[in-house]
Amino acid sequence: MELQKSTYILRIDCPDQKGLVHKITGVLYHNDSNVIRNDEFVDHATGHFFMRTEFSGQAQPSKILNGLHGMLPTQVNISLTTTQTKNVVILATKEHHCLSDLLIRNKFKDLNMNVQAVVSNHETLHELTEKFDVPFHLISHENKSRETHEAEVLAAVQSYQPDYVILAKYMRILSPEVTSHFPNRLINIHHSFLPAFIGANPYKQAFERGVKIIGATAHFVNENLDEGPIIMQDVIRIDHSQTAADMARAGRDVEKIVLAKALKLVLEDRVFIKDNKTIIFE
Amino acid sequence: MELQKSTYILRIDCPDQKGLVHKITGVLYHNDSNVIRNDEFVDHATGHFFMRTEFSGQAQPSKILNGLHGMLPTQVNISLTTTQTKNVVILATKEHHCLSDLLIRNKFKDLNMNVQAVVSNHETLHELTEKFDVPFHLISHENKSRETHEAEVLAAVQSYQPDYVILAKYMRILSPEVTSHFPNRLINIHHSFLPAFIGANPYKQAFERGVKIIGATAHFVNENLDEGPIIMQDVIRIDHSQTAADMARAGRDVEKIVLAKALKLVLEDRVFIKDNKTIIFE
Amino acid sequence: MELQKSTYILRIDCPDQKGLVHKITGVLYHNDSNVIRNDEFVDHATGHFFMRTEFSGQAQPSKILNGLHGMLPTQVNISLTTTQTKNVVILATKEHHCLSDLLIRNKFKDLNMNVQAVVSNHETLHELTEKFDVPFHLISHENKSRETHEAEVLAAVQSYQPDYVILAKYMRILSPEVTSHFPNRLINIHHSFLPAFIGANPYKQAFERGVKIIGATAHFVNENLDEGPIIMQDVIRIDHSQTAADMARAGRDVEKIVLAKALKLVLEDRVFIKDNKTIIFE
Amino acid sequence: MELQKSTYILRIDCPDQKGLVHKITGVLYHNDSNVIRNDEFVDHATGHFFMRTEFSGQAQPSKILNGLHGMLPTQVNISLTTTQTKNVVILATKEHHCLSDLLIRNKFKDLNMNVQAVVSNHETLHELTEKFDVPFHLISHENKSRETHEAEVLAAVQSYQPDYVILAKYMRILSPEVTSHFPNRLINIHHSFLPAFIGANPYKQAFERGVKIIGATAHFVNENLDEGPIIMQDVIRIDHSQTAADMARAGRDVEKIVLAKALKLVLEDRVFIKDNKTIIFE
Repeated sequence: MELQKSTYILRIDCPDQKGLVHKITGVLYHNDSNVIRNDEFVDHATGHFFMRTEFSGQAQPSKILNGLHGMLPTQVNISLTTTQTKNVVILATKEHHCLSDLLIRNKFKDLNMNVQAVVSNHETLHELTEKFDVPFHLISHENKSRETHEAEVLAAVQSYQPDYVILAKYMRILSPEVTSHFPNRLINIHHSFLPAFIGANPYKQAFERGVKIIGATAHFVNENLDEGPIIMQDVIRIDHSQTAADMARAGRDVEKIVLAKALKLVLEDRVFIKDNKTIIFE
Repeated sequence: MELQKSTYILRIDCPDQKGLVHKITGVLYHNDSNVIRNDEFVDHATGHFFMRTEFSGQAQPSKILNGLHGMLPTQVNISLTTTQTKNVVILATKEHHCLSDLLIRNKFKDLNMNVQAVVSNHETLHELTEKFDVPFHLISHENKSRETHEAEVLAAVQSYQPDYVILAKYMRILSPEVTSHFPNRLINIHHSFLPAFIGANPYKQAFERGVKIIGATAHFVNENLDEGPIIMQDVIRIDHSQTAADMARAGRDVEKIVLAKALKLVLEDRVFIKDNKTIIFE
Repeated sequence: MELQKSTYILRIDCPDQKGLVHKITGVLYHNDSNVIRNDEFVDHATGHFFMRTEFSGQAQPSKILNGLHGMLPTQVNISLTTTQTKNVVILATKEHHCLSDLLIRNKFKDLNMNVQAVVSNHETLHELTEKFDVPFHLISHENKSRETHEAEVLAAVQSYQPDYVILAKYMRILSPEVTSHFPNRLINIHHSFLPAFIGANPYKQAFERGVKIIGATAHFVNENLDEGPIIMQDVIRIDHSQTAADMARAGRDVEKIVLAKALKLVLEDRVFIKDNKTIIFE
Repeated sequence: MELQKSTYILRIDCPDQKGLVHKITGVLYHNDSNVIRNDEFVDHATGHFFMRTEFSGQAQPSKILNGLHGMLPTQVNISLTTTQTKNVVILATKEHHCLSDLLIRNKFKDLNMNVQAVVSNHETLHELTEKFDVPFHLISHENKSRETHEAEVLAAVQSYQPDYVILAKYMRILSPEVTSHFPNRLINIHHSFLPAFIGANPYKQAFERGVKIIGATAHFVNENLDEGPIIMQDVIRIDHSQTAADMARAGRDVEKIVLAKALKLVLEDRVFIKDNKTIIFE
């Protein structure tokens, strides 16, 4: 089937070898594609090569993929996608600021995403969510084992088959039984400048330590709490006059902006994950 | 003795009670002093009051101090000083950037300090220091016990009776035997955004964790490594393309500026220490 | 009438003279009030004194005001208010990001304000506004003289008798006939780092000049476009790869956060205006 | 002549056309060079292509250049250089902070430069410069016409045949007769966030405007004052309590760091200039 002239995103990562850029761009050139933007990076520490190319043209994706597979190392990861909107499910608890911001951005199509549903263990954000015509699933954790609750949450999320799952201030720790279903597809906003103040109550920890700067970190979630690959961080200055509650209040704006910026990068296929780090072509 | 018309800095901290500002400013007012700037802060968590006042006038300091002691709580800390230059001794090892910056600032009187001497366990920075006509003490740690080396360093520092001791990338850990001689007078620059990456090789730790922001922290040193009261912090953005060595290089400018800014605050008597935190009237 | 024990904000500005802090805090002390926080500043360039005090207590406001007027210079400005919510009317055009952010904050009471209405010259943001149960007034400028349109807008705004009027990306220039009705009560968000790129299309101007940082400025509006007292500014880095449209997109988050931060300061009575500048006690 | 295995920097810019990356990397590949890092950018507004490649290998530069010229558009700019140290002459006046910082970096080889000489119209920085064993040329402007003074300065600078000329707080405006000798080779640090506060006394202008952020800008100098291509900018926050002199003091650290960062980029051949903008591969 002949594809419409449109924009594609080609992502390749593999062990580095001589001439990769030349070979890859050759396949694109000979398939009549028009490179709009090209970024590559070689991690000399690990000898790994990363490349992301946006191109348009009349080419047949299967022909390009065949051409590439014929000349690249066997351990290569290749994806060739169009810039279509990604489906996401959001998990939240009681705090509204990240969810509000995402619902607004969803409504006005500020991010390359379609919010399919919100799942929460509290009723608090139900009305807000429905205001934006997004389904809200209340799955209370009360009177349930953690296993049961997680199984229900997992089922609700999976019923949507989302591309990504976003923890927008979801205040329960997810066990590896859940997170393992979404490798490199589960994104969390942590309310501290990781790895400072891992775990609960980071603003209280920051207050007690007397730091002069606080921050927020958006990261992929893996099996270890707060230790997944970091996507985006930002900070604000504080001083002695701010209580832990003041810090939490000031931190909310950082959290929502950091999460939105991280999602923009992920949803535009700009983020590679290698071991416990991200390579990002902004 | 009648004092010259000059600038004084009055610093008071004590348990809070009603009317403190009124009473303190009353003593100043009735002693004919001219308040140039006044800052106060009540830490409602601990119920503690802090006040710093710059004033000029013909007043007799002893009269002001007597007046204040008569009306303030018995556990009060009061100091009344002029804005005279503080004496400092700097400890360094091999990295030049913080020491260079301080020697330059010392030469051009950019900070309210007089660098009396540099003490180092290596010869590397000897020539630089002498360029600026500052005595350099090489106290090698080789072929000595830690105790012996520290005793020699301590003796060298104490021979100058400095107001403050500055660790300008001094790469040896000082034991409590040394640090206890300089309570609230020993300032370190740590090459990370504390409390992230405590201890050795923070840039390597930052590289391995894949953070997107690195920083530096100037703090008072107490008996616990990297855990004293924080004075100043700042950060810079990094990305996947930077190695640990690149981060260290980029971090040097942050370190030297953070240290200089922290020293400015301390040397102008703007920093109060309470428990493990600083209250700073910038 | 006996007042409830509650929080008051006392704001005073007047020509500086000796002993002002002592005298003012004396009135509070003798009226049994409990100072929670006190900030003062003397602008030595103009010889002007500013003071803001938060206090609680059983005092009668009229007694405090009488006490103060008896001892302060005659050209003094005094206000003594409670921390009640301020009423605001928002003007917007087609861009949603600042309005969305304010409607969300209004719903969750993140700011000390009550949004009474939104007035716009376009229909675009009607549905969004009503989602949040805020009245929306469409006042189209089409087929009308500027005078007529402005008169209609002014009438709509004034019908609410708001404490403040917020221009949340209102893309029409208001003539002095309108702005003069809201001295020190009309707040605009300008999408550049003023005074760079005054006027229309600042992102296009920034793109053409090739700057490496862009910003946003929240300011009071006076009779001269973009020249009123600045309340808050912030910036983000950009690079050669960003088009004017990319900058506008990235700038939106800065605009909405800067506007919200500026409003927080104004709505908590932390901002003094003197000549063309602000004095802000954060 | 066979070259040593070493690092080269290839820089190409030309009108964009299909397949450029493929063709250029092909020449490198077939000449046995090892690409260490490759960056390219297409400015879609102007249809111009920019590429910078670091590579090592045994290749003959002339063969690579011939290969490239044979296949690239005729209006191409190509340079192929090694990473050798650049020679620079610094112009300064009385303020020491930028010059000090550069002399220190020069001594410790923190930048890819060799400071050949300092030229100044005042004696103030003579002793500092000689401390670092760098020749100092005093060329006073007193009792001379501008033309005569500039001719003397130009002669002094040109006697060194520097790669770059750095204006490190040189407080005299250079006429086009001088600047035209150093197209894209003359770098200035301006003490404001351009284009805000062009011209003299930017801190005074900033103080009078009441801005909340000040900055510094490193830029290439062309015939129009303060209007050349911007390389680097940074900012710091200020508040109402800071006088113009305080801002100048705080600004110095920004100026020296911005200048050093800009020089790092230029001296590593990372900066392209196109019309009035820079394209920078950091």
